[in-house]
Amino acid sequence: MLSAEIIAIGSELLTPEKTDTNGLWLTGKLNEIGIEVKLKTIVGDDSLRLEETIKDALKRSDVVITTGGLGPTEDDITRQISARAIGRELVFHEEIVEHLRERFRAWGREMPEINKRQAYTIEGAEILPNPNGSAVGMAVGIGEKFLIILPGPPRENQPMFNDFVFQKLREKAGEIVFRKRILKVSGLGESAVDEAIAPIYSAYNNVSTSILFNKSEVEVHLTAQGANDIEADALNAEIAAKIVEKLGIAVFSTEGEEMEEVVGRLLTERSETLSVAESCTGGLISQRLTDISGSSRYFIEGVIAYANEAKTNALNVSPEIIEQNGAVSAETAEAMAKGMRARAKTNYAISITGIAGPTGGTPEKPVGTVFIGYSDEKLTKSFKIVLPGDRFLIRWRSSQAALDYLRRQILKK
Amino acid sequence: MLSAEIIAIGSELLTPEKTDTNGLWLTGKLNEIGIEVKLKTIVGDDSLRLEETIKDALKRSDVVITTGGLGPTEDDITRQISARAIGRELVFHEEIVEHLRERFRAWGREMPEINKRQAYTIEGAEILPNPNGSAVGMAVGIGEKFLIILPGPPRENQPMFNDFVFQKLREKAGEIVFRKRILKVSGLGESAVDEAIAPIYSAYNNVSTSILFNKSEVEVHLTAQGANDIEADALNAEIAAKIVEKLGIAVFSTEGEEMEEVVGRLLTERSETLSVAESCTGGLISQRLTDISGSSRYFIEGVIAYANEAKTNALNVSPEIIEQNGAVSAETAEAMAKGMRARAKTNYAISITGIAGPTGGTPEKPVGTVFIGYSDEKLTKSFKIVLPGDRFLIRWRSSQAALDYLRRQILKK
Repeated sequence: MLSAEIIAIGSELLTPEKTDTNGLWLTGKLNEIGIEVKLKTIVGDDSLRLEETIKDALKRSDVVITTGGLGPTEDDITRQISARAIGRELVFHEEIVEHLRERFRAWGREMPEINKRQAYTIEGAEILPNPNGSAVGMAVGIGEKFLIILPGPPRENQPMFNDFVFQKLREKAGEIVFRKRILKVSGLGESAVDEAIAPIYSAYNNVSTSILFNKSEVEVHLTAQGANDIEADALNAEIAAKIVEKLGIAVFSTEGEEMEEVVGRLLTERSETLSVAESCTGGLISQRLTDISGSSRYFIEGVIAYANEAKTNALNVSPEIIEQNGAVSAETAEAMAKGMRARAKTNYAISITGIAGPTGGTPEKPVGTVFIGYSDEKLTKSFKIVLPGDRFLIRWRSSQAALDYLRRQILKK
Repeated sequence: MLSAEIIAIGSELLTPEKTDTNGLWLTGKLNEIGIEVKLKTIVGDDSLRLEETIKDALKRSDVVITTGGLGPTEDDITRQISARAIGRELVFHEEIVEHLRERFRAWGREMPEINKRQAYTIEGAEILPNPNGSAVGMAVGIGEKFLIILPGPPRENQPMFNDFVFQKLREKAGEIVFRKRILKVSGLGESAVDEAIAPIYSAYNNVSTSILFNKSEVEVHLTAQGANDIEADALNAEIAAKIVEKLGIAVFSTEGEEMEEVVGRLLTERSETLSVAESCTGGLISQRLTDISGSSRYFIEGVIAYANEAKTNALNVSPEIIEQNGAVSAETAEAMAKGMRARAKTNYAISITGIAGPTGGTPEKPVGTVFIGYSDEKLTKSFKIVLPGDRFLIRWRSSQAALDYLRRQILKK
């Protein structure tokens, strides 16, 4: 498997506001042909650091791609520094100048003298034309390695990569294909998932597996290699099936879907409807559900009953229930779900009441205490969880727990 | 001026889907105290490349900050590799294990054995506590240089940096101080704002100004330098006052607050209350409002009336209004706001009905058509906007427009 490094060049990429996005796109294209990106560097208009970066990258990796720093101004140092890093000269091309003059003429402008800088390329480099801008790119073979030099703007470097680089690298990379698949797991921690499934994935040499924790769920990323898509997909499917067999209902998606998509799919398949009564999550569950286009098929109504009076007025929770048990209690959660379902006339209703913090906690009900209610035509019930995290995470994790509870109930019915 | 490098560690950051965002936040904090970020590296779970990266960074720069790779699994190699890069041993801390066991116990879980890995720190390193996660951080002085090792999740590394690293680096960085201030502007485009305020900011040499567009608002970032905080803050305040004088009510925050915070503050100051009736935004406005701790003082109730029956049942919108004008109309928006306010008995109610897409548009009411309703004790009114963007952006921009409408009404009263 070939290795690649990507170097993004430009001081604006070292500010608090701007991040390199070229790297993501290039990574996707390289992964398609089985080239793995091993390192990315973002460096400014800094000759010493850039030279060292290019040298190190070429020492370590088969393919090095730079983006940016090919403009006509003095800050644009990619041409000189990359030539110096590989010990070659720059060569001036009269035909590039001519071409640039024409471009400027076409816009009714005179080419500024400084643009002549863009007519220098590295000795022995293949010149990559740029129909969308003034900077040409370069592809330089250095022994078995490749240095690819691209302009910074995506609308210039993407067509340049597609038209003049992709095929070259595909030939170099050979036949192998890589395919990715993401499984998502609820209710288990990262290390518990790893302990359970390590015996499965470690038996496969040609699938790389990584396990990530993502706010409130664990993701299992599988990347299978094969001679073609079908072969690689089959490998992923084989492991995915074994993981589902092992972890059961805890796997809520084998296709990388969000929890709200999974719940939406289950409701759509069953032509059933849902309403939601929220207190501490303040609309987050409804917002997540309705993020999905087509959710109007199953999502009927939501109520955010923040104040106690709202719980009574909108959801018909009797004031005595709240008085006797507190607004954050199993009884209130169940009454909210029941009241919501009765009013919206849906197949299911879920409810949430809890303490998202940072204030409002008590010794018996600390911040993070959340009751989730569920109601369908036959039964109404609830469960309690105590969630770690700050306000944002407690709200997020509550919403995830409620949607997952609904998912498990639907599947059990 | 001190130089810094940031190293983001984790193979997931080398996929086509994920980019490092920690680097942006850290850059902002470092810039505040006059430390310049000269290079950023993103490296996977790759011992050789990581070791070389840490060594190179410490050779070139005064401060090196790593994020990520401190989890409990075998992929998490930051501890071992950074120790190796600087030629030190790892030391086991029984007290960290005890603390971890307690954390797990508090969630009602047993600590998996592999978490013991997180109890190793580099010889001579200062341990940085992590109240929000299981991985401690480290600060290592190496001669005149600093290696700072932080966990990957922003919710863990940001408080850790603020509480245990910032002051240390500030002392090292010395005299000149940089202070940042963010103004936020609604209802005007990026170039209109720039045209209006360029004569103001260009008169100041020691304040750098940048103007950014952010989803649905324009941000003006001021960074003033001075001999101390008071001097730099005064400079920012002077420019901020001039910008507010020029742009008036369009400036909704001079302290970088979110729109929902500004609205919350206005309501709190006036001891007034709010309820919200949403259709196309599906709970987003309520969710944003209740993201703010203390919002229970003014946010009473929200209704997500997705289906037409919900608009009628929950908000008392007469079926004739919907039939005659459509669910997406000024009349329906006004009836929603009026019905919401009557039921929740709040000082204000706002409502939204619109077409978030991608489907559901018509020639007269294309995707992006949104009606925003407003009701207080004296009047009920509405306005229409047609918003560009995909489903996510239309929903976001609608929520922002509704909150801004409310803000302007409150200020005009």
